Amino acid sequence: MQLFFSAHIEENTVFLDADETRHCKVLRKTEGDQVQVLDGKGLLIDCRIHSIRKDSAELEIIARNRYPRQRPYYFHLYIAPTKQNERMEWMFEKAIEVGLDEITFIETEHSEKARVNTGRLERIAVSALKQSGQYYLPKINPICKLGQVEAKGMLLAHCGPGEKKSLRELCYPLADNALIRIMIGPEGDFSPSEIERMIRQGAQPVHLGSSRLRTETAGLYCAVMLSGLV
Amino acid sequence: MQLFFSAHIEENTVFLDADETRHCKVLRKTEGDQVQVLDGKGLLIDCRIHSIRKDSAELEIIARNRYPRQRPYYFHLYIAPTKQNERMEWMFEKAIEVGLDEITFIETEHSEKARVNTGRLERIAVSALKQSGQYYLPKINPICKLGQVEAKGMLLAHCGPGEKKSLRELCYPLADNALIRIMIGPEGDFSPSEIERMIRQGAQPVHLGSSRLRTETAGLYCAVMLSGLV
Repeated sequence: MQLFFSAHIEENTVFLDADETRHCKVLRKTEGDQVQVLDGKGLLIDCRIHSIRKDSAELEIIARNRYPRQRPYYFHLYIAPTKQNERMEWMFEKAIEVGLDEITFIETEHSEKARVNTGRLERIAVSALKQSGQYYLPKINPICKLGQVEAKGMLLAHCGPGEKKSLRELCYPLADNALIRIMIGPEGDFSPSEIERMIRQGAQPVHLGSSRLRTETAGLYCAVMLSGLV
Repeated sequence: MQLFFSAHIEENTVFLDADETRHCKVLRKTEGDQVQVLDGKGLLIDCRIHSIRKDSAELEIIARNRYPRQRPYYFHLYIAPTKQNERMEWMFEKAIEVGLDEITFIETEHSEKARVNTGRLERIAVSALKQSGQYYLPKINPICKLGQVEAKGMLLAHCGPGEKKSLRELCYPLADNALIRIMIGPEGDFSPSEIERMIRQGAQPVHLGSSRLRTETAGLYCAVMLSGLV
C-alpha cells in the first residue's frame, strides 16, 4: 500500500502537508482510498482519505501499528559539512538506509562551510525512511562549533598521526542500547590542536580502515560498520 | 607532490594523455618540474617534466616505486546499473576509496538500463585512486547478461524470501587471497526465476543487514563490510 509521512497527527485524523498532498495527487489517490502513514516515531497508521484540498489532506485513522526500534544501538554522527551539498546529502540518505539515529553538523577550524539546509535534509530523511522500510526518523541538529560538543566518549575519526583503534575493536561486542557517537572532520581534517584538545577531553581516536576516505564516505563507512556489529 | 596518472609508460618516459596534460597545465607545472605518476598497476613513478604540448606531455622517469596490493582479498562486484547514472557513479567512486578490485555490470530481467559509459567510469576510477592514496585501478568490464556469469561461488544479494547468511558469516575469517564475488540486482530486484536459477547453479544467498537498501547503497555496503573483515 502507498506510504506517506505526517508530523501532524491528532486523535482520529492525520493531516498531510503540501509536499505529501502533492505526492498523493500524483499517485491519483482520491477520497475513500486507503493509504498508510509513517509518523517517523515508530507508528505506521492505516488511514482512509477523508478529503484532499490544494495544499493539504485529511485522513481518517483506521488503525495504529507501533514498531519498536530495529537496531540495538543508537548512532549519533557528528560531521563537518562538505563543500558540495550533494555529497553530504547522499551520505545522509544512504546512512539512513543503513542505520542512523541522530546527526549533528560541526564547524571546525578547516571547515569551508558552516551552514546546512536542514529543511532539505528533513525531506531527504522522509524519503529515505519510506524507501528503506523503517519507522524512525533521525534527529537532525543544527550546526554547532566543535568546542560546544561533549568530547568525552566521542570516537574521533581523524587522519593525523597517533594510535587509533578500529570501530570493531572499540564497539564490539555492543553493549545493550549502546550510544555510539562518532565525529568526522572536514575535507582538510581537524587541526592538530583540535585533535589534541578533543583527546585530552576524553575523545577516543578511531581509524576507518587502511584507505584515506573522503568526509562523506567516512560517514557512510561508520553506519555500515556499526550495522555489521549486530 | 602532485600526482598524475598514465596508462602509457615506456622504458624511460611517461606519456600523459590530454586530460592529465590539461590537469598539469591547470596546476601550472612546467618543464623541469618534478611530479609523481601512478600507473594503476602498483607503480608510483617519480618523474621530471621533459616537454608539455597542447594535448600531451612527456615526463622523464627518475625512479619507479612498486607497491604491493593493500588488501588480502580481491573483491569483484557484479551489479545492475541504476536508472540514474550518477547513483552508480558515486557508488563506484566510494567503493574504490574503500576497496574494489573489479566490477562487472549485468543486464537482468528487471533492468531498465543496459548500458554504462565505461570511459566515464575510468576517469572516476583514476580520480578516486589519486584521492584515496591507492595504487591499483579496478578492472571495469563491459555489461553482460546475467546468464553469461558463472553462478558457482557467487554471493547473491537478493531481496526475495529464502534462507540467507550475512557477509561476515560467509566470508569470515578470510582465506588467503580470497576472491569474493558479490552480485546485486536492479531497482526491482532479480526475478524469482533468476534467483532460483542462480542458486541452483551454485550461488549462495547473502543478506545485507536488516534494511532494504537501494542498489547503489548495497554495492557500497559490501565494499565496507569486506574491508571490516580484515
